[in-house]
Amino acid sequence: MDISTPALLLDLKKVRRNTKAMTARLASKGVNLRPHLKTAKSLEVARLAIEGNFGGITVSTLTEAEFFFAQGITDIVYAVCIAPSKLDRAADLTRRGAGLKIIIDSVDLAVAISGHGGQFRVLIEIDCGEHRTGLDPDHADLLEIARLITDSENAELSGVLTHAGQSYNCRSVQDIRQTAQIEHDAVLLAAARIKKAGYACPVVSIGSTPTVTFGDDFSGVTEARPGVFVFYDLFQAGMGVCSEKDIALSVLASVISNRPEHQQVLIDAGGLALSKDRSTGALDTDFGYGLVCDALTGLPESGLIVDSVHQEHGNIHISDVDTLAQFPVGRRVRILPNHACMTAAAYDGYYVVDGNDIVAEWPRCNGWK
Amino acid sequence: MDISTPALLLDLKKVRRNTKAMTARLASKGVNLRPHLKTAKSLEVARLAIEGNFGGITVSTLTEAEFFFAQGITDIVYAVCIAPSKLDRAADLTRRGAGLKIIIDSVDLAVAISGHGGQFRVLIEIDCGEHRTGLDPDHADLLEIARLITDSENAELSGVLTHAGQSYNCRSVQDIRQTAQIEHDAVLLAAARIKKAGYACPVVSIGSTPTVTFGDDFSGVTEARPGVFVFYDLFQAGMGVCSEKDIALSVLASVISNRPEHQQVLIDAGGLALSKDRSTGALDTDFGYGLVCDALTGLPESGLIVDSVHQEHGNIHISDVDTLAQFPVGRRVRILPNHACMTAAAYDGYYVVDGNDIVAEWPRCNGWK
Repeated sequence: MDISTPALLLDLKKVRRNTKAMTARLASKGVNLRPHLKTAKSLEVARLAIEGNFGGITVSTLTEAEFFFAQGITDIVYAVCIAPSKLDRAADLTRRGAGLKIIIDSVDLAVAISGHGGQFRVLIEIDCGEHRTGLDPDHADLLEIARLITDSENAELSGVLTHAGQSYNCRSVQDIRQTAQIEHDAVLLAAARIKKAGYACPVVSIGSTPTVTFGDDFSGVTEARPGVFVFYDLFQAGMGVCSEKDIALSVLASVISNRPEHQQVLIDAGGLALSKDRSTGALDTDFGYGLVCDALTGLPESGLIVDSVHQEHGNIHISDVDTLAQFPVGRRVRILPNHACMTAAAYDGYYVVDGNDIVAEWPRCNGWK
Repeated sequence: MDISTPALLLDLKKVRRNTKAMTARLASKGVNLRPHLKTAKSLEVARLAIEGNFGGITVSTLTEAEFFFAQGITDIVYAVCIAPSKLDRAADLTRRGAGLKIIIDSVDLAVAISGHGGQFRVLIEIDCGEHRTGLDPDHADLLEIARLITDSENAELSGVLTHAGQSYNCRSVQDIRQTAQIEHDAVLLAAARIKKAGYACPVVSIGSTPTVTFGDDFSGVTEARPGVFVFYDLFQAGMGVCSEKDIALSVLASVISNRPEHQQVLIDAGGLALSKDRSTGALDTDFGYGLVCDALTGLPESGLIVDSVHQEHGNIHISDVDTLAQFPVGRRVRILPNHACMTAAAYDGYYVVDGNDIVAEWPRCNGWK
């Protein structure tokens, strides 16, 4: 691979396998897969992830929504509570034909929407225990928001949405299953309250890769929004959600220094190229800033990790002299990331690889402009 | 400021003040300032930083080198040990007229350079105690590399370079002063060995914002390469290298959720917009993922911090009900960053502000392509 390092590699076969497996799993549960593209931010990955599904996607920024809509994907949930100043941008997408749904968790936003000149489809976000955004499912404001949106001539209540982000704190499959049930029950309770009060609630949306992978009960759920499953990463593998072999994303790096006297090898992928995400620090096996693999086979190099980073340097501690000698200046390695969403964000695109051949370059839509 | 959030703001007056102060300090020591543009990655910031100086800069990627050279800045040190596969790219810059200097720390690289078809100016990197890249100043390979480069028809030995990155571990001004002396002594020892062996060593280059700010002894040093001083950040302020008022970089964010029942406010700047850098976690005052300031005055809001982040969410814990009420949905805040280099990297440019007016937009050159 004659490309400058650091570079972001995407294993096409693994992405296909991951998206097909998730599609099959959710189809077997009778739930629509609405993949969250915050991880990939790529049209080509979006197309693989919606293949065999109903075609809807999830995004984390309006920049992503505009990008995917411009390329022909119309059914989009913007799954971060919208700031009032972004209503103009959302309304513009709807005016141009996008089937955009926004999410809110406050009466203030419901009032702002009903007083706005644009048209909106609205999901109410429910907090199922992560305590990020969302309303507790028994919150009094839930029905007030449902009423305000339903009564607004320019808005339509699409339903409810939740995200069991607390599943990332689970340390066993059993924990994840329990969390999935909590996620399910919370959003169903909110939906039931809305329907009982006489308002429509056609969409009941859940999502997180761990809970969607291990949850049992999808009754009443209409769609699921996992994201990181398209690539997976060391954190998901450490949680048992995937295996290391499923990780489709890696950073190609070059050895730039080999220092036997300090038992270290330095590579040209550091805090920017790998991200400073340290999520595996909370798991049984701490992978530092990433797992070192052979550049050609993609297989781990005897458990070596990038143990510290500077902006453009990654440090690999190697105490064994013979092992150290296997990493001369110029050798290339692949680093598997802790957290695919954070690592990929430093790059404007992917080198798509099939085995060791680069078969395509796929751009990403980063930023917020 | 009618811009979408999150957005990266740069306070023009503070940048000017910071660059002028560093220029004056180094001029008073008789040392050339070669600002490290890895923080700013911006032509306009580069111009402010080299104003009143000799015009040379430092970069952390060949992408930066190409960017600045294309805009007319020719004297460039690429201050990361070069990978053999990047020699072609470096040689191309030199061929096109750039006064590019590359750095190496191994005999292997010296051999690769002397066998390459291009022309190179080479600095040998010295490890003054950070134990990142570089040769220990008394390392036997130092003179072998000096000989190989000096004897190569296509290469010129420009001198020695070191970086006291361990100054970031200092916890007092006295510690920083001692580290500055160690940095000075290490690189001077290496330069003396090279000269004594009969090779040229015109450049003696040091650099790190803390050591350059507090060092006493610059004898024999020809240039210094601080970088983060152009913007500063909470980590530098926490070390006593600057004050919070000197921090020129901030992230403009909007409140997207206000949850009295959970004593929290959520903003639309999360792990991507702020970075996952947690460097202040090692200091007396831990600022989490950033310090919350008023959007208009830029002044801190009673010590509130972003205590946790998700990809697009930042959480601010606020236990006091009255304080919480001051952050309704839609309010804007500015977040001062832990580490300017990491936070700025998520954006393709700066909104340059003078007071509360956006006076310019300056692009950044991110990535490695």
